Amino acid sequence: MVAVALLAAGRGTRMKSSLPKVLHPLGGRSLIERVLDSVSNLPIDRRLIVVGFAADQVKIALAQEPDLEFVEQTEQLGTGHAVQQLLPPLQGYDGDVLVLNGDVPLLRPETLEKLVKTHQEANNEATLLTAHFPDPTGYGRVFCDANNRIKEIVEHRDCTEAQRQNSRINAGVYCFRWSSLAQILPTLSNDNDQQEYYLTDVVRFMQVVQAVDVEDHQEILGVNDRLQLAATYDILQTRIKENWMRAGVTLVDPASITIDSEVVLEPDVIIEPQTHLRGRSHIRSGCRIGPSSLIEDSELGENVTVSFSVISDSTVQAGSRVGPYAHLRGQAQVGAGCRIGNFVELKKAQLGNRTNVAHLSYLGDAQIGAQVNVGAGTITANYDGYQKHQTIIGDRTKTGSNSILVAPLTVGSDVTIAAGSTITEDVPDNTLAIARSRQTNKSGWKLKSASS
Amino acid sequence: MVAVALLAAGRGTRMKSSLPKVLHPLGGRSLIERVLDSVSNLPIDRRLIVVGFAADQVKIALAQEPDLEFVEQTEQLGTGHAVQQLLPPLQGYDGDVLVLNGDVPLLRPETLEKLVKTHQEANNEATLLTAHFPDPTGYGRVFCDANNRIKEIVEHRDCTEAQRQNSRINAGVYCFRWSSLAQILPTLSNDNDQQEYYLTDVVRFMQVVQAVDVEDHQEILGVNDRLQLAATYDILQTRIKENWMRAGVTLVDPASITIDSEVVLEPDVIIEPQTHLRGRSHIRSGCRIGPSSLIEDSELGENVTVSFSVISDSTVQAGSRVGPYAHLRGQAQVGAGCRIGNFVELKKAQLGNRTNVAHLSYLGDAQIGAQVNVGAGTITANYDGYQKHQTIIGDRTKTGSNSILVAPLTVGSDVTIAAGSTITEDVPDNTLAIARSRQTNKSGWKLKSASS
Amino acid sequence: MVAVALLAAGRGTRMKSSLPKVLHPLGGRSLIERVLDSVSNLPIDRRLIVVGFAADQVKIALAQEPDLEFVEQTEQLGTGHAVQQLLPPLQGYDGDVLVLNGDVPLLRPETLEKLVKTHQEANNEATLLTAHFPDPTGYGRVFCDANNRIKEIVEHRDCTEAQRQNSRINAGVYCFRWSSLAQILPTLSNDNDQQEYYLTDVVRFMQVVQAVDVEDHQEILGVNDRLQLAATYDILQTRIKENWMRAGVTLVDPASITIDSEVVLEPDVIIEPQTHLRGRSHIRSGCRIGPSSLIEDSELGENVTVSFSVISDSTVQAGSRVGPYAHLRGQAQVGAGCRIGNFVELKKAQLGNRTNVAHLSYLGDAQIGAQVNVGAGTITANYDGYQKHQTIIGDRTKTGSNSILVAPLTVGSDVTIAAGSTITEDVPDNTLAIARSRQTNKSGWKLKSASS
Repeated sequence: MVAVALLAAGRGTRMKSSLPKVLHPLGGRSLIERVLDSVSNLPIDRRLIVVGFAADQVKIALAQEPDLEFVEQTEQLGTGHAVQQLLPPLQGYDGDVLVLNGDVPLLRPETLEKLVKTHQEANNEATLLTAHFPDPTGYGRVFCDANNRIKEIVEHRDCTEAQRQNSRINAGVYCFRWSSLAQILPTLSNDNDQQEYYLTDVVRFMQVVQAVDVEDHQEILGVNDRLQLAATYDILQTRIKENWMRAGVTLVDPASITIDSEVVLEPDVIIEPQTHLRGRSHIRSGCRIGPSSLIEDSELGENVTVSFSVISDSTVQAGSRVGPYAHLRGQAQVGAGCRIGNFVELKKAQLGNRTNVAHLSYLGDAQIGAQVNVGAGTITANYDGYQKHQTIIGDRTKTGSNSILVAPLTVGSDVTIAAGSTITEDVPDNTLAIARSRQTNKSGWKLKSASS
Repeated sequence: MVAVALLAAGRGTRMKSSLPKVLHPLGGRSLIERVLDSVSNLPIDRRLIVVGFAADQVKIALAQEPDLEFVEQTEQLGTGHAVQQLLPPLQGYDGDVLVLNGDVPLLRPETLEKLVKTHQEANNEATLLTAHFPDPTGYGRVFCDANNRIKEIVEHRDCTEAQRQNSRINAGVYCFRWSSLAQILPTLSNDNDQQEYYLTDVVRFMQVVQAVDVEDHQEILGVNDRLQLAATYDILQTRIKENWMRAGVTLVDPASITIDSEVVLEPDVIIEPQTHLRGRSHIRSGCRIGPSSLIEDSELGENVTVSFSVISDSTVQAGSRVGPYAHLRGQAQVGAGCRIGNFVELKKAQLGNRTNVAHLSYLGDAQIGAQVNVGAGTITANYDGYQKHQTIIGDRTKTGSNSILVAPLTVGSDVTIAAGSTITEDVPDNTLAIARSRQTNKSGWKLKSASS
Repeated sequence: MVAVALLAAGRGTRMKSSLPKVLHPLGGRSLIERVLDSVSNLPIDRRLIVVGFAADQVKIALAQEPDLEFVEQTEQLGTGHAVQQLLPPLQGYDGDVLVLNGDVPLLRPETLEKLVKTHQEANNEATLLTAHFPDPTGYGRVFCDANNRIKEIVEHRDCTEAQRQNSRINAGVYCFRWSSLAQILPTLSNDNDQQEYYLTDVVRFMQVVQAVDVEDHQEILGVNDRLQLAATYDILQTRIKENWMRAGVTLVDPASITIDSEVVLEPDVIIEPQTHLRGRSHIRSGCRIGPSSLIEDSELGENVTVSFSVISDSTVQAGSRVGPYAHLRGQAQVGAGCRIGNFVELKKAQLGNRTNVAHLSYLGDAQIGAQVNVGAGTITANYDGYQKHQTIIGDRTKTGSNSILVAPLTVGSDVTIAAGSTITEDVPDNTLAIARSRQTNKSGWKLKSASS
């Protein structure tokens, strides 16, 4: 039984932001959401969030997370002081407490599982996550005996020069026996340079305190400014991209590509440079995406190609080709074997198989059949100034260039709409609909001034 | 006289692909095509490809390469076993045989020339390419005397810990005196951990075996997974880009740019970030391309500028400006001093000098004169549902906004087409063509509901 | 009192360019403009530019810089020879002379301030900028005593192997007491391998010569070829981007972003990948820009979002959303809360607050009111073949799909323009304007051949 306590009360001054630090996004999820993700494999019975700066913003941002307990830390007087705020809500709690900062987004669930397991099997009073850091500047140093029993922890600013040579640092991730911690917390002192209450000081009063090294020291990197935010994002992206490459995905110029954690890719997908895959997208085998494309919360069937295009909240079925310069959004649903060409926008439009929309078109709120050919410049006039209306088109119909379909409108199958026609009335099957003027040629005419 | 034998029978399991490993593309050419390129300077009289996994796919992919001899290796029992398959086709051959893996795409022709020359001048029975590798893990180690005569080769997995300290590795590139090799091949044994026939074992039975070091150890990198594919691509790109920079091309942010091997650039070309030059493109002096553009199999004259655009299979003559958001394809031919603006697609359209297509147009199957002004929203209706038709426009003609040119159509010179006209009949020179309705203003009208 | 002399006479052969080296651009400014920037904090009374190769091009490029004195160096016989050309124009000058190469674009003003201050306080005859260089190959080495008094300077090519071990190099930036230098210059000899006059030789004839180390050795990097141009740009970009990150700007994938020196960003701006901020752009707090966007000489109000778009010479007010695939240029002015959607171009168009131009439109030379809805495919026909004309639209007006507004044209407030109408006459307030043909349905019609 473990309670998790996340310290999320700090402003994060060096972020220079109106947003509290823990809410800064990192690849689609906030720092604190990522920390919550990292403990999701543990047998947790309570989750407490210590909030302070912009507490309301933090609460609102986490509103959809179930069963969080928010604990107010009105002044920020150090990590020890933050954990002291847990005394009332955890009164009488007899399990362990895992304490983490809300700004450490790279922890792997396995790391925390190992920490808690070690803690519980060794029956420690406290177990700390440690790392060997190439440049430990700024981090508290941990001094252990041969059995990883901790002898001392010294904050960087309080270290002697000799102590600073020790590269084993305190990751700021602790598992405590709560009953022990609760006894010591009230006795903490702030008699140090910063006049802060250090959580690390409690260790001195405990008997059995052990350190557990993290395998990959990058996991414990915290975010204190935007440079570290960028560095952390880079590490996260490298992790994700190497995993997908190992799983059979070709990334052409991986450094230029970003992939959110929740994206699913299949083998033999090829991602071209400068392509971004976001949200809950699923891209099936044989797809080639990019260059310079954004796929967000969308699903692409097998062997779809997308280049220089933006697709969000949409689906494209097998073998269709999209782009360059296409934009699918708002539940666009493209069938199999379709071609969506340049300067085409689909918004809440459903297309049957083998339908082409090749150039300069806007289809919104439309239901289009199979094998339809939508001519260049075709536009669904779906908005009357007050509300949106539907356009329905049957199979094998062909709209001429620059035709306008004024919704609500139903056009049958095997219909031809003449180029340049504004269609305001329904068209039955097998019909030619035409709405345009006769051509007049005025010969001997010379372009003079204001005529267009 | 050299025969080249490429080993291309393996599946490449770690690629996690339905495509055989040697067919994976690397900058527009497959791995095996690149290996074939690397031997192209040698005096080759025969080229044998040992195929196995997905042999038909490999054969089809190489169908346009002349005079290849495919040799089947139905089971994959090691490199020695692969080379044993050469015994029947090379029976009686009395030259040398250069043996390479099909997955080593970075070898320079000069490296292989040096290998073969050393082999032939020293009259060796076998000559091996070796490299000093910073991290030799996974590679067989080569042990030589002071004269580069090889004493022993040990596969990584069979190495002692001490042997693994030797960083001189076997690149897997061999030149053999075929008559010697042919005698030894049948005696190879698979008495080792992997129960494979190792080609390296033949060396033990030869008298004069020499090693030749490659100068740049990156050349011998093989591709076993998608991470290595990406790493190899990066090396190839760095090579190409550094060469062009030395030749007088400015690359703004080179890391974000990719350039295929066959592209030709002239001095004082400037390539902006996120730009990709592919295929047999030729870009003349003074061009500025990018950001975010793709040029494929196209030719750009001097001082052309292209930004945020895609150009494939097309030509653009001197001084023209393209983009942002233009798309030229299918043998578009743009004259000198033209302006192709945003949201414009040209497909099999030929434009005379100083013609402008500035906005929102599609010109397909069109032949447009010089100094023409194509108005915003002009569309050639080139497709009647069955086939494509031509539109021909003379010099100095001006099409009004949203005009539609219904092909087949011939419009003369000095013609003005009124805005919003659908032109279905030919227009002679010096004529105003108009096809639209009179405007009516209904005053006191208030927008209510379904009208658009 | 300091005179600055910039050496800008060389061709820069390794640039392989028709442009003189010092005019090559680096992030929007030429190399020599950047060197001029780096001395701008000093108390300068004269600025002399030594020109030679393509002197006229250099003069024209610097025409807008006030009070430059150009000094011709017709032959290029070394740095000493270049400085000898200063003898006539500086005859009788009794201050100090700061001598720099025109190809060293990364010097910080503070570095030169420190150099000049040291020179003047120590009353030196000469003071040299030095750097400790990881790889000093190619640079002259500086040998000093414990007080930074220079004992000897040896050009790389004249160095013994032992001397080459010294990593303290001559940055080629000198402050001289002109009266001392003027006496020595005529005595310089070219008795060396290259038969060049070395400026460094003058040091031997001076009594008090001191070295000042630059803190960041990257500052003194020179540009001799396009690889160095790219490397220098990378350093400059890293500097700029790290500064903005420290100031509270989030850069998602900083390596893919470029930011010109004069751009101003506010805290809590988020820049997505592959985005380029150029010229004198100002981007206010809360904006999210990118991916794949270019903002040039433009101003964006708070909380504006831009994706996959190009904005130049324009302004967008608070809360507006632009893109993907929008293009604003030529003093476009977008009000607050507007939406500019895909395939929309605004050129010299002014939009009131809460006006939408969502799809496939071109608005040029237009003045549009507030809360206007510009329908998909709306085009201002602003060009009559001779000149551009204005379109004026009142508040709350709605243009139908594919409507054409033939300028000059005034459309009132609360007007509705029917879809597919070509509007050539003014429309008063509260009016429906319509200009289209009746629809005809020809039933039983079958698509045969050339009809569209």
